Amino acid sequence: MEQKKNIMDYDTVSLDDESSAVVIIDQTKLPGTTEIIALKTAQEIWDAIYLLQVRGAPAIGVAAAYGIYVLAKGIDTDNYDEFYAEFKKQKEYLDSSRPTAVNLSWALNRMEQVVLNNADKSVSEIKQLLKEESIEIQDEDIRVCKAIGEYGLTLVKPGDGILTHCNAGKLATSKYGTATAPIYLGQERGYNFRVFADETRPLLQGARLTAFELQSSGVDVTLICDNMSATVMKNGWVDAIFVGCDRVAANGDTANKIGTSVVAAVAKQYNVPMYIAAPTSTIDMNTPTGDQIKIEQRKPEEVTEMWYKERMAPEGVKVFNPAFDVTDHELIAGIVTEFGIARPPYTESFKEIFAKKEAAQKNK
Amino acid sequence: MEQKKNIMDYDTVSLDDESSAVVIIDQTKLPGTTEIIALKTAQEIWDAIYLLQVRGAPAIGVAAAYGIYVLAKGIDTDNYDEFYAEFKKQKEYLDSSRPTAVNLSWALNRMEQVVLNNADKSVSEIKQLLKEESIEIQDEDIRVCKAIGEYGLTLVKPGDGILTHCNAGKLATSKYGTATAPIYLGQERGYNFRVFADETRPLLQGARLTAFELQSSGVDVTLICDNMSATVMKNGWVDAIFVGCDRVAANGDTANKIGTSVVAAVAKQYNVPMYIAAPTSTIDMNTPTGDQIKIEQRKPEEVTEMWYKERMAPEGVKVFNPAFDVTDHELIAGIVTEFGIARPPYTESFKEIFAKKEAAQKNK
Repeated sequence: MEQKKNIMDYDTVSLDDESSAVVIIDQTKLPGTTEIIALKTAQEIWDAIYLLQVRGAPAIGVAAAYGIYVLAKGIDTDNYDEFYAEFKKQKEYLDSSRPTAVNLSWALNRMEQVVLNNADKSVSEIKQLLKEESIEIQDEDIRVCKAIGEYGLTLVKPGDGILTHCNAGKLATSKYGTATAPIYLGQERGYNFRVFADETRPLLQGARLTAFELQSSGVDVTLICDNMSATVMKNGWVDAIFVGCDRVAANGDTANKIGTSVVAAVAKQYNVPMYIAAPTSTIDMNTPTGDQIKIEQRKPEEVTEMWYKERMAPEGVKVFNPAFDVTDHELIAGIVTEFGIARPPYTESFKEIFAKKEAAQKNK
Repeated sequence: MEQKKNIMDYDTVSLDDESSAVVIIDQTKLPGTTEIIALKTAQEIWDAIYLLQVRGAPAIGVAAAYGIYVLAKGIDTDNYDEFYAEFKKQKEYLDSSRPTAVNLSWALNRMEQVVLNNADKSVSEIKQLLKEESIEIQDEDIRVCKAIGEYGLTLVKPGDGILTHCNAGKLATSKYGTATAPIYLGQERGYNFRVFADETRPLLQGARLTAFELQSSGVDVTLICDNMSATVMKNGWVDAIFVGCDRVAANGDTANKIGTSVVAAVAKQYNVPMYIAAPTSTIDMNTPTGDQIKIEQRKPEEVTEMWYKERMAPEGVKVFNPAFDVTDHELIAGIVTEFGIARPPYTESFKEIFAKKEAAQKNK
């Protein structure tokens, strides 16, 4: 479809209500090509999630919400029972595209609640409410990221060097990203950060996505291999580290993309503060420590073959390829949420954060 | 040429005097193909060094020594002056193949001294002495590596887990390697080490060469990405780290392949001892600290394009690509030389090591 040069011209995910389409940046084509695609059918939406054309937990949730709205809008009946039966079928189909993505189910269930809670209304009124809910899901994502950015920005000053690992950027969310939120907000305010992006082996999300989106947004970004972090820190080029997370335990131990805990150990050696950008939805108070977090092992070919012109390791070599690692809470200087910055001891600090969240929800 | 399955059938470099050839493993074909090539002409020897078919400082020195012997053997004259003029021409030609490789000039100069010191002898006697000197250069390399292996072996016990970075293995030397010497000696004695090989971005020497040579030698080796070192250490799988070095300063600061100092910081965090395998020839008492070691910057394409099927980072992105880093001496538990293990404070310990070396040379 349409091609433009600058990713800044587009959102990662958006709704084109007039055309009844979910519009996304096809992330499988990056960084070579910025291709914007419009998803209209159930099959197209399912494929986009399954094929990782849209990725990152918040972005998947938003794409699913817009997706089920677009499909619901096309259901041609005025009868509630018929409408709900068809809605349910479409919802379950979309939900099967990435069974392990928590945000996918979460967003689809939230949309289903709209249908269930409004059985007394007309189908056309329900369609309007679904539209509003899907837009609210995206707006919430943007507000959370922006709040993380505001708090994160208090931890740095204009001209600072910032290092990040993997992609917790705008391509993984609706806007701002999580780890990148202080960078983008700072850029809007003329902070002129110098950013170092770890390439992030084996899947190279740092090189393909983070370096790409920061460069496209006009941020001063330098790509490094993961094993160069000690050199840039020793040289005094890094004032703070911001990374995203997949799950935070109650004691502050944090599971994130493989290599994050290497960055943390190096940061400790060179006295650079390590910050985790974490929406409160990722903080799991039912997991006492990082030891209880199960780490997914992925296939060896990601290390030995993927991306390469030719095989880069001997046939049959044993490979250890964990997708994530756990960073000890003692290596983390602060965990930045949309309700403030948690500091050690984290169990106590998280209680205050969640109290603030509850208060905010009551005030709504 | 000839192809066999197991690298253990061959030496990295050897002399086939009967065929007047230097025989090497073509390292540019690894790990896909083990191709053994015989170098007979000046052009073939020059190309092999220039194209990195033979690499690693000690291995280059040995290849150059055998190379100049093979070429000298073919000089068809009984006249000393004619012989020396032609020898000198060939020597300078070989020396131009990799101008920055210190061992190349060192070995060729040592061979030239044989010609200069024996001007009173017949050309055929000089040719015999050149052969002996070239063999002695290789024997010395093997003795140094073996002695490093013996000392290194005192630092570990059977069944230990060992992590290494880059390739300081037998493919970089005549036999045993430096960092790998304790591993191979231990294997000969049934130690059953479990070895983790960092892939070593950007040039992947760990994946292509170290994992290959250890696997081919029957060592239990597991390949990991550089950013997985914290996970394997946190899991308690690593009892010691052995890495090679390019240059050691008088205070023990050590320059080695980029990423070594990342391994060292992680090792400190998880209380794993970090050992440097260092022939005394790499210890430079005229360089007070690592700050005086200049770090070579290499081209961005090694990070953004090399090996890859398609470009893996955005066009024009800034890249920082240092070839080496310096590991602070405070992160190093011991520096293993052929004359014993230096311990902090290194400046004092090195004096004892060099005194032993001097004594050994006097006793020869």
